[in-house]
Amino acid sequence: MWEVAWWRPGTWGGLAMRVGQVAFAGASIGVMASGAGFANYTAFCYLIASMGLQSLWSLGLACLDVYALTVKRDLNNALLVSLFVIGDWVTALLSFAASCSAGGVMVLFKRDVLFCRRYPQLPCGRFELAVALAFLSWALSATSAIIMFCLLAAF
Amino acid sequence: MWEVAWWRPGTWGGLAMRVGQVAFAGASIGVMASGAGFANYTAFCYLIASMGLQSLWSLGLACLDVYALTVKRDLNNALLVSLFVIGDWVTALLSFAASCSAGGVMVLFKRDVLFCRRYPQLPCGRFELAVALAFLSWALSATSAIIMFCLLAAF
Repeated sequence: MWEVAWWRPGTWGGLAMRVGQVAFAGASIGVMASGAGFANYTAFCYLIASMGLQSLWSLGLACLDVYALTVKRDLNNALLVSLFVIGDWVTALLSFAASCSAGGVMVLFKRDVLFCRRYPQLPCGRFELAVALAFLSWALSATSAIIMFCLLAAF
Repeated sequence: MWEVAWWRPGTWGGLAMRVGQVAFAGASIGVMASGAGFANYTAFCYLIASMGLQSLWSLGLACLDVYALTVKRDLNNALLVSLFVIGDWVTALLSFAASCSAGGVMVLFKRDVLFCRRYPQLPCGRFELAVALAFLSWALSATSAIIMFCLLAAF
């Protein structure tokens, strides 16, 4: 269960992790985009862009996992895994930066400048949920980045 | 020059990197704390806390480097390096999160809600400089986290 090999690309574990990343990133985009006025804030736009990149990358790898499971092909070669390592680290870093900056702005809105109380039309609840979903997506993405790195180190 | 061994703990390269981290983190704290009203913003307080942790950790390791250089002791053992890896990764992650959230708030102030233009008493220039210094400190910290990891992997 806790072995790295269970979660490598082209397995059910790897597919589950990719689907989770796509689901959380997509949910974060959906919730954020449904909050009126998000486009006035750079950090929230950047969150959507970064979650878009995350979901595209994870969706691509999920498709590759499905293909590998269907034709029973082994994706465990050094070139592919090093490609996955680079992509996963880059997307995880961008997701983390986006989640942190949007989170910083949310804390400012709620606690420091009290925008949420002063402007009740601002959908703070939605923004918060979107940031929380982005952090979940980042957590899964960071996990798979670490797993890919361990797989690469094992070559 | 570009070999990992040049930058390992207990060498002049390692000491230079630690001194750089302490200098940038200390400068970031100083510039931020000299900006009136920073304490009203959670993200800026968190930046100071995180840079404080970063400078304490790096200062401790700098002292250890000086000691190792003075008595010509080799710090290259697996237990010490794994301790350094954990500490460096944790501080680098916290510094990155703090820099990103403070950066997100700065972008909001300058471009979205125009606080810098509306409230000229807000020392935006200082806040920006502090965030930039925090990013520089993070960059050095991330570099040494990666170097420590490579050293650990070589055991």
